[in-house]
Amino acid sequence: MTSRAAIAAAAERIAGYVRRTPVLRLGSADLGLGRPLALKLELLQHAGSFKPRGAFNRLLAAPRPRGGVIAASGGNHGAAVAFAARTLGIAAEVFVPVPTPAVKADRIARYGARVVRDGASYAEALRACRSRREETGALEIHAYDDSDVIAGQGTVGREFEADAPELTHVLVAVGGGGLIGGVAAWYAGSAQVIGVEPEACPALHEARRAGRPVPVAVGGLAADSLGARQVGELVFPIAAAHVAASLLVPDAAIRAAQRVLWDRLRVLAEPGGATALAALLSGAFTAPADARVGVLVCGANADPATLSAEVT
Amino acid sequence: MTSRAAIAAAAERIAGYVRRTPVLRLGSADLGLGRPLALKLELLQHAGSFKPRGAFNRLLAAPRPRGGVIAASGGNHGAAVAFAARTLGIAAEVFVPVPTPAVKADRIARYGARVVRDGASYAEALRACRSRREETGALEIHAYDDSDVIAGQGTVGREFEADAPELTHVLVAVGGGGLIGGVAAWYAGSAQVIGVEPEACPALHEARRAGRPVPVAVGGLAADSLGARQVGELVFPIAAAHVAASLLVPDAAIRAAQRVLWDRLRVLAEPGGATALAALLSGAFTAPADARVGVLVCGANADPATLSAEVT
Repeated sequence: MTSRAAIAAAAERIAGYVRRTPVLRLGSADLGLGRPLALKLELLQHAGSFKPRGAFNRLLAAPRPRGGVIAASGGNHGAAVAFAARTLGIAAEVFVPVPTPAVKADRIARYGARVVRDGASYAEALRACRSRREETGALEIHAYDDSDVIAGQGTVGREFEADAPELTHVLVAVGGGGLIGGVAAWYAGSAQVIGVEPEACPALHEARRAGRPVPVAVGGLAADSLGARQVGELVFPIAAAHVAASLLVPDAAIRAAQRVLWDRLRVLAEPGGATALAALLSGAFTAPADARVGVLVCGANADPATLSAEVT
Repeated sequence: MTSRAAIAAAAERIAGYVRRTPVLRLGSADLGLGRPLALKLELLQHAGSFKPRGAFNRLLAAPRPRGGVIAASGGNHGAAVAFAARTLGIAAEVFVPVPTPAVKADRIARYGARVVRDGASYAEALRACRSRREETGALEIHAYDDSDVIAGQGTVGREFEADAPELTHVLVAVGGGGLIGGVAAWYAGSAQVIGVEPEACPALHEARRAGRPVPVAVGGLAADSLGARQVGELVFPIAAAHVAASLLVPDAAIRAAQRVLWDRLRVLAEPGGATALAALLSGAFTAPADARVGVLVCGANADPATLSAEVT
């Protein structure tokens, strides 16, 4: 299981490659919640999400890969792998499902990766990616089920604790679970880490009910960033030990949170980036009166025209 | 002339009413500048710009106005006055020129102000505003040529210095000059404060050439936030004493800076909010190799659909 020491080592390894994103503190009246709030603006990270933390940690922890690096993802992870590989001067191939929107594939390509469209779904793209890896010997970076990736994402939690040490509760959006796995491993019970998923992408919620990762159907607004079919095998035991609760929010609450982020803060987040806040605004999450709550705003990796349509 | 003591008093007065906006630190490679950079993300302020600082300071420094508060502005200042007045439970009237876009007038109205469309230009709206003030005895809040407003805006500089004490140069966009007046009065030569204006809105530049505020023609991309016909009479002596240089940038550089802010940082700024950074990215501003540069990103107060069209 990922340790605080592994996360501290990751932080040292990736310092200079990732941004220390700022914390924005809001007063009790700001969002009408009657309590102060600390938002970690991780959407200001390179490539528009937290994902470069894990990608850099995996790349820097491994021997320099002679066959380059390879990953499957049509979204934030693909962009992050491409960005990290370019920064380190390593060739990258990213396999994306055929239906991936051009704007996302183009962004990955602009970071210098070779983009291969193969397969109708993420699962098929991953299969094609692994077949290609057999040929090239490239280093694969999994989007979440990898201990170096989880430790890298955990550096978000480490920074949040350092910059907002008063927090008693931290809300984190969940897809495959790399982010919440790392954050929960860092706090390890010293603050309550709460997972938030769209009702339409309930991988952690269902895993906790079943007592193990199980496949779920995914869909809805945030599927492109949070639509993992199953939480990671390495993530689940961390979540079982250190995630205090797992909440679901409807798509309407995610959309409302996106609107509040723009209207009150001029923060333009993608649906997955607004999902954790949605739990607070919608009332899905309630905390004791003396709780000090923090929220990770974790991504804005989309076409600004799409996002602006979503917030108006 | 606005003193550091007046700015410190303003900071104490408005604490709890304004957000302490975060500083984002960028590495040398981040924007391809070959130097680190500190951005103060003041566009995360209430009402989408720095303007509430001055509005709150003016309102809180004055005796509670029995006739409410009144201002002329179709833009950031109008929104800020409406926001501050609502927060303090004071009635507000905001006079906007007839051609003001509905999205801006609506935002002012959503903050609870009575919006009056009167006059073809800002100057005519201001005249109507002052005529109305004669009737109501309301407290007028000028957008920049007021010592309490200047001191309030100076609190941005005070925070920036506290959070980034290493800075040797601070770039600030200039409209009527309330922001740069306050920031320059705070630093008072301890860092070089550089004013940046669009070529199409050169009020400070022309005032420095003439040795006094002079009227200029205004237009271009950023006119709605930086298009003052003349810098303030109270601003000019501060600028003469403490503004190290006044630079002009073309609209194309402003647009390019907006695009960089979105593409690299997921910050969606209005043209006026990107103008200071434009001087750095375009090469209009050059600094010694050992300079430590800070930039104020001061506004995002526009329709997100318009902004997203501007960055793509």
